[in-house]
Amino acid sequence: LRLRGISRSAGLPPGILGSEPDEHAHDTTINLFNFNATEVLTESLSDADAACSSILTEKTSWMRITGFRDTATIQKICEGIGLHPLLIEDIFNTHQRPGLEASDDSVFVTLNSISSVGEKGLSQLRVSMILTNNCVITVEESPIDLFDGLVDRILKDKGRIRKNGNDYLAYAILDVLVDGYFLVLEQVSDQMEGLETELAENPDPGLLARIQSLRNQMLMLRKAVWPLREVISGLSRDHTALISQPVVAFFRDVYDHTIQVIDTAETLREILSGMVDTYLSSISNRMNQVMKVLTVVATIFIPLTFIAGVYGMNFHFMPELPMKWGYFAALGLMVIVALGMLTYFRKKKWL
Amino acid sequence: LRLRGISRSAGLPPGILGSEPDEHAHDTTINLFNFNATEVLTESLSDADAACSSILTEKTSWMRITGFRDTATIQKICEGIGLHPLLIEDIFNTHQRPGLEASDDSVFVTLNSISSVGEKGLSQLRVSMILTNNCVITVEESPIDLFDGLVDRILKDKGRIRKNGNDYLAYAILDVLVDGYFLVLEQVSDQMEGLETELAENPDPGLLARIQSLRNQMLMLRKAVWPLREVISGLSRDHTALISQPVVAFFRDVYDHTIQVIDTAETLREILSGMVDTYLSSISNRMNQVMKVLTVVATIFIPLTFIAGVYGMNFHFMPELPMKWGYFAALGLMVIVALGMLTYFRKKKWL
Amino acid sequence: LRLRGISRSAGLPPGILGSEPDEHAHDTTINLFNFNATEVLTESLSDADAACSSILTEKTSWMRITGFRDTATIQKICEGIGLHPLLIEDIFNTHQRPGLEASDDSVFVTLNSISSVGEKGLSQLRVSMILTNNCVITVEESPIDLFDGLVDRILKDKGRIRKNGNDYLAYAILDVLVDGYFLVLEQVSDQMEGLETELAENPDPGLLARIQSLRNQMLMLRKAVWPLREVISGLSRDHTALISQPVVAFFRDVYDHTIQVIDTAETLREILSGMVDTYLSSISNRMNQVMKVLTVVATIFIPLTFIAGVYGMNFHFMPELPMKWGYFAALGLMVIVALGMLTYFRKKKWL
Amino acid sequence: LRLRGISRSAGLPPGILGSEPDEHAHDTTINLFNFNATEVLTESLSDADAACSSILTEKTSWMRITGFRDTATIQKICEGIGLHPLLIEDIFNTHQRPGLEASDDSVFVTLNSISSVGEKGLSQLRVSMILTNNCVITVEESPIDLFDGLVDRILKDKGRIRKNGNDYLAYAILDVLVDGYFLVLEQVSDQMEGLETELAENPDPGLLARIQSLRNQMLMLRKAVWPLREVISGLSRDHTALISQPVVAFFRDVYDHTIQVIDTAETLREILSGMVDTYLSSISNRMNQVMKVLTVVATIFIPLTFIAGVYGMNFHFMPELPMKWGYFAALGLMVIVALGMLTYFRKKKWL
Amino acid sequence: LRLRGISRSAGLPPGILGSEPDEHAHDTTINLFNFNATEVLTESLSDADAACSSILTEKTSWMRITGFRDTATIQKICEGIGLHPLLIEDIFNTHQRPGLEASDDSVFVTLNSISSVGEKGLSQLRVSMILTNNCVITVEESPIDLFDGLVDRILKDKGRIRKNGNDYLAYAILDVLVDGYFLVLEQVSDQMEGLETELAENPDPGLLARIQSLRNQMLMLRKAVWPLREVISGLSRDHTALISQPVVAFFRDVYDHTIQVIDTAETLREILSGMVDTYLSSISNRMNQVMKVLTVVATIFIPLTFIAGVYGMNFHFMPELPMKWGYFAALGLMVIVALGMLTYFRKKKWL
Repeated sequence: LRLRGISRSAGLPPGILGSEPDEHAHDTTINLFNFNATEVLTESLSDADAACSSILTEKTSWMRITGFRDTATIQKICEGIGLHPLLIEDIFNTHQRPGLEASDDSVFVTLNSISSVGEKGLSQLRVSMILTNNCVITVEESPIDLFDGLVDRILKDKGRIRKNGNDYLAYAILDVLVDGYFLVLEQVSDQMEGLETELAENPDPGLLARIQSLRNQMLMLRKAVWPLREVISGLSRDHTALISQPVVAFFRDVYDHTIQVIDTAETLREILSGMVDTYLSSISNRMNQVMKVLTVVATIFIPLTFIAGVYGMNFHFMPELPMKWGYFAALGLMVIVALGMLTYFRKKKWL
Repeated sequence: LRLRGISRSAGLPPGILGSEPDEHAHDTTINLFNFNATEVLTESLSDADAACSSILTEKTSWMRITGFRDTATIQKICEGIGLHPLLIEDIFNTHQRPGLEASDDSVFVTLNSISSVGEKGLSQLRVSMILTNNCVITVEESPIDLFDGLVDRILKDKGRIRKNGNDYLAYAILDVLVDGYFLVLEQVSDQMEGLETELAENPDPGLLARIQSLRNQMLMLRKAVWPLREVISGLSRDHTALISQPVVAFFRDVYDHTIQVIDTAETLREILSGMVDTYLSSISNRMNQVMKVLTVVATIFIPLTFIAGVYGMNFHFMPELPMKWGYFAALGLMVIVALGMLTYFRKKKWL
Repeated sequence: LRLRGISRSAGLPPGILGSEPDEHAHDTTINLFNFNATEVLTESLSDADAACSSILTEKTSWMRITGFRDTATIQKICEGIGLHPLLIEDIFNTHQRPGLEASDDSVFVTLNSISSVGEKGLSQLRVSMILTNNCVITVEESPIDLFDGLVDRILKDKGRIRKNGNDYLAYAILDVLVDGYFLVLEQVSDQMEGLETELAENPDPGLLARIQSLRNQMLMLRKAVWPLREVISGLSRDHTALISQPVVAFFRDVYDHTIQVIDTAETLREILSGMVDTYLSSISNRMNQVMKVLTVVATIFIPLTFIAGVYGMNFHFMPELPMKWGYFAALGLMVIVALGMLTYFRKKKWL
Repeated sequence: LRLRGISRSAGLPPGILGSEPDEHAHDTTINLFNFNATEVLTESLSDADAACSSILTEKTSWMRITGFRDTATIQKICEGIGLHPLLIEDIFNTHQRPGLEASDDSVFVTLNSISSVGEKGLSQLRVSMILTNNCVITVEESPIDLFDGLVDRILKDKGRIRKNGNDYLAYAILDVLVDGYFLVLEQVSDQMEGLETELAENPDPGLLARIQSLRNQMLMLRKAVWPLREVISGLSRDHTALISQPVVAFFRDVYDHTIQVIDTAETLREILSGMVDTYLSSISNRMNQVMKVLTVVATIFIPLTFIAGVYGMNFHFMPELPMKWGYFAALGLMVIVALGMLTYFRKKKWL
Repeated sequence: LRLRGISRSAGLPPGILGSEPDEHAHDTTINLFNFNATEVLTESLSDADAACSSILTEKTSWMRITGFRDTATIQKICEGIGLHPLLIEDIFNTHQRPGLEASDDSVFVTLNSISSVGEKGLSQLRVSMILTNNCVITVEESPIDLFDGLVDRILKDKGRIRKNGNDYLAYAILDVLVDGYFLVLEQVSDQMEGLETELAENPDPGLLARIQSLRNQMLMLRKAVWPLREVISGLSRDHTALISQPVVAFFRDVYDHTIQVIDTAETLREILSGMVDTYLSSISNRMNQVMKVLTVVATIFIPLTFIAGVYGMNFHFMPELPMKWGYFAALGLMVIVALGMLTYFRKKKWL
């Protein structure tokens, strides 16, 4: 959980973007899809004015903006559709919680798309979506893989997306993003299965770090998805004029998925907490096993060494020493003592 | 908790079933029960059209569909009664939360039937129920044993089921499914009793895995039943025209059972958490017991070996060595030291 | 927490009692108290018809039914006053949560009376109460000791019970049952005081089992009393015509007691959780104490044995061996080493 | 948490006080303060009738009753102002939760004043306050020190108390009682600071008991103050005619303090939970430190003793034994081995 | 968490400040900023009357009072604008929770500004803000660094602050204060990253104290910010006439930030709890590692010493002793035993 930069704007006036662009930001590209049931027009644009004028009112339009390098252009487009300055700031503020601003003219949704990047943890990407009467605009921090399937569905006319309007497109975008959380859950759950096997067979110290990392991922996911609940609930209930009645049912479906994500994340987190206990117990069991065997070995030899010590004493009168079979009797005694102790330990199940 | 496949539909259009049937799905069979107080007609059908036309309006009708292999037929039947495409998808989506969609024409309920499969954990089966004016349709992922008793009650005219309408039948189906959760709780509670005895007598490392497994089962059960609470509460409150006033009381009874399941699952989970503590303490006690005895043995022999060592020294002038009874005195000293230490350890309750 | 039988009715039609009576059930007896300010009539009845006809409308009447053996008679009486079949089933279902069904004709309350049975845990008894216009009927799984004081108050005209109507009698019955929970809390709290002393003085492994058992008892108590909160809150708020305004104040008092029980049970449970920590730490402290002393003993003798070993070597040229005072010097060295180590350990507070 | 007596009334009729007075109760004294901006009249009374007739309607009046010995007189006074029998019982029931009964004629508040009694824990005293049109009556289980300052303010005309009416007096009394909880929090927080220093420097086993005791005190405080929240919220919202609008603002201030007490108690409790962890870790660290040093000592001498053992063997042909410098070579070898091991342990940071 | 002084006012009349000023309080200074889009007038004042008369009604005015030494002047100013005595007390009560009092004439907000003071913890400073028709007054316990940026924005005309009225100024002040919490979160999160590295590489006992200190800081932050939620929610919802509709959107933005602070603090706290587990496990792993190696060393030498002991016995008839190669055979046996044990330990992964 990196928070560096969360307070960047402390002391700065709100709603005003930094004047110089972020060097590390992804290059900004603008793709516009104008489509209806019969055709798709794809355009790649670079200019704010061109972008706005290319939207075809009679078609379903998706303007997909990726990369935060050219903030000026993005800001110009957003101002062009009348977005509040605070909302424009939210588009770029990667530490902002998911939020919804709905009016009869526009619906603004901002959230974080989360994807798993192997063992290292989760990566968050800022995505905002603006639904207006004419089009759906999405702004991504950097290109999100989840949208590839959606673009494919538009281009190849799979499903209903080409036959529906902007509101259905907005739904399809949110649906894909929420499905992304399921992907993360699936990957975490896959890793957990692996961990469980390792826990049983070979609990090594690195395991705890991995369990804790997954647990922290679930915390982050919950933090990201929890406010989304309200956002999507708002979309499926508030009946903004921009979303038609039949599409509201689809938003309710996304809402159910969101709740499902939260429930599952919580359950996984609780199972991971149980795994921490199991890990600690497992490590301690292994250690105890080692210590027990070693201690038993030591304990068996100590009395034997004592016997040897007794017959190593230099007293002048020790009746056993001159006996012919004394040495062998002593060895025999040692064997008997050792076997007796072994038997006792076995019976007590210490070995 | 296996989540593989939860995100299968990411990138796919919603509401559209995969075109090819799942190879591992259970074969689809359709059984139709038309009955009233005086007679029962049982039919086995294989065709969607035949199925719909065989429903007798003047009788109580239960169409029981089992197995997800032939999704096309199931989809056709559901479309025939006017079900929303998203709900049809929910029928097959085994990772979906329980849900309710009630209108005056139909009531759609989907949930997961849970059964215990021995020590390995729980198995979930998707069950959906559609109540319409003419019939009750159930769709099961694979045949659910809990329904055997219900079929028996219909065939042999036990209880009130034959004398009541479709709403009572819907209640009876839900009641049987919720009773199934009690069966799981009972089995878990039985296993817990066994565990408690083992915890006291013979805590072995496998025990923790079994406790955690039961704890995870309770987490899963809660996750499955928690949303069911709202579903059934909706049925007993919303007064859809399809459920008559006298039958609402029965749904309220099922609601109480659901709450009871949740309460009991929570209590069992908290007791299992306590058992984890007891297990850890028990293991540690046993280990300590072993270590203590072994350490005591070592501690007693160390001073004895020291005495033997002293009289094993080769100094030319050691007054004790030439003494007639020196050896026996040394042995006596050793016995006294050993007994003294034993007494001290006993008094301190270290043995 | 025994759940055997909780799912007994799975597959059976609801609202229908098993045909054969339970062999282990307590014998059914029916006692009827008809009383007013001036006189008490006590009758012992065995027949359902006789029971119902013996209720004197102009008096306050309490029909006390104990024992579940003769379910047929109990069912007949309950049907006689028009109770819903599901509620009649609830009377006998010992695993059902507490519930309330209030109409203007009757108030039905079912709950579990809990009593402590020494160290073994809690025992639950099913009690149901039906308040009608003419009488109060109680059905107990087996005779509840808590009612003895109430019978005494009726017979000896203590307090206001003889001067009030059926609604006040219903209140008095509930009040006595809720006071029974306080008795359990008191006994648990007494046992906890004993445990605290033992924890400090002599923590033995059995202690944990007793702490956990008390903790589980608090969990059970909470599970039993939590839904009671709503039940009694319903009685003190819903203003059924059967309960007069002045008596509602008394029900509110019982409600406060119920909340008090829940609060206290929660607090006791949290204190018990703290005792588990203290126990584990206490056990570990004792163990550490033992190990430390034993290890110190071993550590002191090991260097001494080494010195003895050195002078036990058989080198031909060892200058110390032929010395006159060599032996005593060696012994002296050993004493000095031992004292030095003891001093060091003392200074470090390891002893 | 002593609960003995909590169920005393089980089986007794409610609202009826035990006939014989409690031997251990504090002697009952009645002090009446009649005051306005210009004068204060102080009277000490012993009779219920005299007490009631001494209240001056045109002045602000505080009747302060302390001690539960003479329950009859207290009961008589309370009945004189028309208090419900159940409320009179609440005055004496030290285990009752805080409660509020407000009508347009009177406001009845009952709560527990909590004070810290050194290390042993908290002591609870029952205090009830009745606000009527003419006066404020307080009934204390035994004299509460917190009221000394209030009496002083009345006698010496500090602040606004003499210039205001009964409602402001009632506020001042509650304010003083709630400030008493802050005193407890302050004392607990002071003890915690001491504990933190001890934790770092010298964690001894008694420390845990003290941490747990403070934690239990926070649990008790929360249990006592949590319901007070609703009580005072009720006073500042319900607008009983007895409390004038300007004084409501003061009650809102007390409400804020109550919330502050709850928040602080919760925070302290969570910090104390953290201290339990720190304590356990601290104890375990110390123990490990000891064990490590001792084990290292043993480990260094064991190989040395082995070398001595080798040259203590009695084989006839051992080439080293007859060598002139054999003994010193052996001693040198021992020194080298010991130094080598010490260096290794140092490098590994085991010493 | 220092609470000394929290109960200072117990027994004192509310709303009345102590007569003598606090010696340790910061000197009081008053700065007044009158500004509009075109000019800024800055004045430094020392007198209450002068302060109030210098406010220019037609401009946006910020009166910034810092330091609690001269309570009389501050009180006079506050009384001048008609603030309730209880609210004036709240300005100086550093233990009071954040609060809001809004009317159509004035909005009073009081809260604690929190800043991190390195490793030692958090420091709290009391800040209150009063928004009236004519001006915004802030009272700081001592100068808050966060305001420097704000002053800079006013003087250098950055952003919109100069172009807006008092309500926007009030928003800007709250925004800066809430951003201060983000700074704390950022610093804590930075320290946590450092801790995580140390946890993995070199867990020393001081680490736990630092983790617990951060955890307590998160508890304190939550305690400070949690009530702020309601305060700012009140400002963005209640529509006091003093805050114009466009500015309400800005307050909603601050509200979102506040929720974000709470969410993040909770998440950090849960991650810190996980770090405590990791620390404990890490310490225990290191210890186990040491103990294991040492025990293995001891265990290898014990059988060797035993063999040496056997051939150190003084029996007259020991066939091995006179053998020519006996000594070397014995040494060889020792080497074989040692190697065998090493191999076994390696195979078992104990080394």
